[in-house]
Amino acid sequence: MDIKEKSILAKKASNLMAALTGEAKNKALHNIAGALEKYMPDLIAANRIDLERSKKQNLSSPLLKRLKFDESKIEEACSGLNSLIGMNDPVGVTLRAVELDEGLELYKVSCPIGVIGVIFESRPDALVQISALCLKSGNAVLLKGGSEASETNRLLAEIITKASSDAEIPRGWLALLETRTDVNDMLCLDQYIDLIVPRGSNAFVKHIMENTHIPVLGHADGICHVYVDSAANLDMAVKISIDSKCQYVAVCNAAETILVHRDIAGRYLPEMKKALEAKNVEIRGCSETLKIIDVIKAAEEDWTTEYLDLIVSVKVVHTLEDAIDHINTYGSGHTDVIVTGDRTRASKFMDLVDSADVFLNCSSRFSDGFRFGLGAEVGISTNKIHARGPVGLEGLLIYKWKLFGNGHIVADYSGADAKSFTHRPL
Amino acid sequence: MDIKEKSILAKKASNLMAALTGEAKNKALHNIAGALEKYMPDLIAANRIDLERSKKQNLSSPLLKRLKFDESKIEEACSGLNSLIGMNDPVGVTLRAVELDEGLELYKVSCPIGVIGVIFESRPDALVQISALCLKSGNAVLLKGGSEASETNRLLAEIITKASSDAEIPRGWLALLETRTDVNDMLCLDQYIDLIVPRGSNAFVKHIMENTHIPVLGHADGICHVYVDSAANLDMAVKISIDSKCQYVAVCNAAETILVHRDIAGRYLPEMKKALEAKNVEIRGCSETLKIIDVIKAAEEDWTTEYLDLIVSVKVVHTLEDAIDHINTYGSGHTDVIVTGDRTRASKFMDLVDSADVFLNCSSRFSDGFRFGLGAEVGISTNKIHARGPVGLEGLLIYKWKLFGNGHIVADYSGADAKSFTHRPL
Repeated sequence: MDIKEKSILAKKASNLMAALTGEAKNKALHNIAGALEKYMPDLIAANRIDLERSKKQNLSSPLLKRLKFDESKIEEACSGLNSLIGMNDPVGVTLRAVELDEGLELYKVSCPIGVIGVIFESRPDALVQISALCLKSGNAVLLKGGSEASETNRLLAEIITKASSDAEIPRGWLALLETRTDVNDMLCLDQYIDLIVPRGSNAFVKHIMENTHIPVLGHADGICHVYVDSAANLDMAVKISIDSKCQYVAVCNAAETILVHRDIAGRYLPEMKKALEAKNVEIRGCSETLKIIDVIKAAEEDWTTEYLDLIVSVKVVHTLEDAIDHINTYGSGHTDVIVTGDRTRASKFMDLVDSADVFLNCSSRFSDGFRFGLGAEVGISTNKIHARGPVGLEGLLIYKWKLFGNGHIVADYSGADAKSFTHRPL
Repeated sequence: MDIKEKSILAKKASNLMAALTGEAKNKALHNIAGALEKYMPDLIAANRIDLERSKKQNLSSPLLKRLKFDESKIEEACSGLNSLIGMNDPVGVTLRAVELDEGLELYKVSCPIGVIGVIFESRPDALVQISALCLKSGNAVLLKGGSEASETNRLLAEIITKASSDAEIPRGWLALLETRTDVNDMLCLDQYIDLIVPRGSNAFVKHIMENTHIPVLGHADGICHVYVDSAANLDMAVKISIDSKCQYVAVCNAAETILVHRDIAGRYLPEMKKALEAKNVEIRGCSETLKIIDVIKAAEEDWTTEYLDLIVSVKVVHTLEDAIDHINTYGSGHTDVIVTGDRTRASKFMDLVDSADVFLNCSSRFSDGFRFGLGAEVGISTNKIHARGPVGLEGLLIYKWKLFGNGHIVADYSGADAKSFTHRPL
């Protein structure tokens, strides 16, 4: 089957999945967890093939670690499935109810989006997590994983397909794409695919966004800032800067730029330098920073660079407004932090910084679906519509309007003797 | 100023508008209403120029009627502004609140989207309504109205700009585009514009959707269906079919196709024919319809045609599932109606028809923001994400996550002695 045929089948499946009961979906999730346990030896064997091929191809050791799908990773995937089973059915929730007139009742009800295309990195556990999230929310899914994990992913897709079809989930609700060409073909299928969630490198996500008319949920850059305000507690500012920059440098919610109010720069920068250098972080400062500490000079492109590495850019700003302006100009709308003891200044920063996540006196690294308590995470979005920041199940849902009447027609509500609407909340 | 400069200015204004208080926005709306009253004679004079030019250009009489901006239309616009003033500020509403750990509190808070580009038809009152909705929701707006209304729109934009700047709304929050070239230029400015709302013809909306990477909120087609089920009340079915088709034929929520279950077709179709023909509606039927009533034969393209006229296509279906399939295949996801006395069959239809609005036993013409009680309407959306169906103010809002800590860092929540999260609802 080519990708268009798979998409048509997924669309048909999704049209039926909208009416699946919570029990049916949970039964399927339960079956999938059982099948993963049952086929554990086969999964580990398939994964070994991927690992060996990738080692020969000199895949870096952090990537090999992510690729590995062993007993503990499989157990973890199963526990993720069980926690999804424990969650309420997110479909069919009444979001609003209003009587338009006697016997004419309007309900706004949550429902699945339809067909989701997800492109993800080389972690096989992501395949389980994403397909489970789509199933729980009643969506069909087209999956493209990293080619390094092809053997593991193929077997996983087979196992999930079989286990869910035994629970009467419509055929074709899950399909695996195997090549980059498949992905490019998918981008044109806006007739069948309702949303694309690309996870991966900056350049890759940008490529997706620029080459499709299907809505895309995700983020390209994560240029996050920590702004140390004049009213900041010095120790707290250093602690938060270090955690935001260094706790895990390779992720989108790590800080790339530290902004410092000039009134505190003389005291903060030397402390910051000491702490960052102890963590082997290279510092690139603006000209005013250089007057206070001896570091490399930052260039204009440093303000728009996502290092994902032990490098940080530092800029002295003259006012709170300058900090906000810098972030709104150079940032990526992901996560930005203010460290201050002044609640009024904090409010201003948090209202005016146009980012998904705006934090006061804590690390940018908290920007994460699990830490936010959303359960499993679909991804982090810097979109300005639909879903923003860490996105859980609710990002895979939309709503429809259900109106229940008893022969009501609009002619009765227009013209000379028009009846009027009650618009009474139910 | 060219459109790019206007967009940059709008972006800057929008960054400040996010922090406007409800009072400031209401004061501006109040000023605008006052100014419209004050400059009523000038507005009527400007509108007269538009009307005379358009008459010479042989604009059709319904369009001339929409173009007219007289005392009663201005009064109506002012009363719309006053009802917006009466509404709660939609910005800053807490949608979710959860304690992540002691002293670390997360809030999901509604906020404006940013800069909205709206392209609308030749009704000058739409300019007032749209800019007021954007202002109330804290968004900057780029407006392109019909060229027939150019004099009226120019004066309206001037009046609104002046009145709102007196209420300290940031300069540049509203800008008027005047040419089609401006619109095409706007479609490329995804760096500054966050959402486009195109209102107008099918072909025009499609053109917009296919030529921009900015998210678009709207609908191209409105191919709405009435399905008369085997368990329908015959009189009710006829009444709802007539209202859905004829109450106002030129609008997107008018029905274009009637589907009839074969078990009731013999009784329903003759009654329907009589009633539709009394309203001068041309009927185009499928081959099974033709066996029962004498009407024109429908072609395949009839099922995908939005007539917006006194024409209707009619098809006999064998099962409820066939009706659902037909709608999901040929429909536009706008509004679809089932007439039935059977609640189980109604539920199935309403769950499985993948449309923004699914109605039981009432006219498709109820699909409208005012009738739904949403207040003013931004438009009707057939999108699968963000906002669907009639969209009120909430379609112009998104949210941000605000996290308030007190020196919290992620390092404390990872590794061997990791603290755990409380995730306690607040």
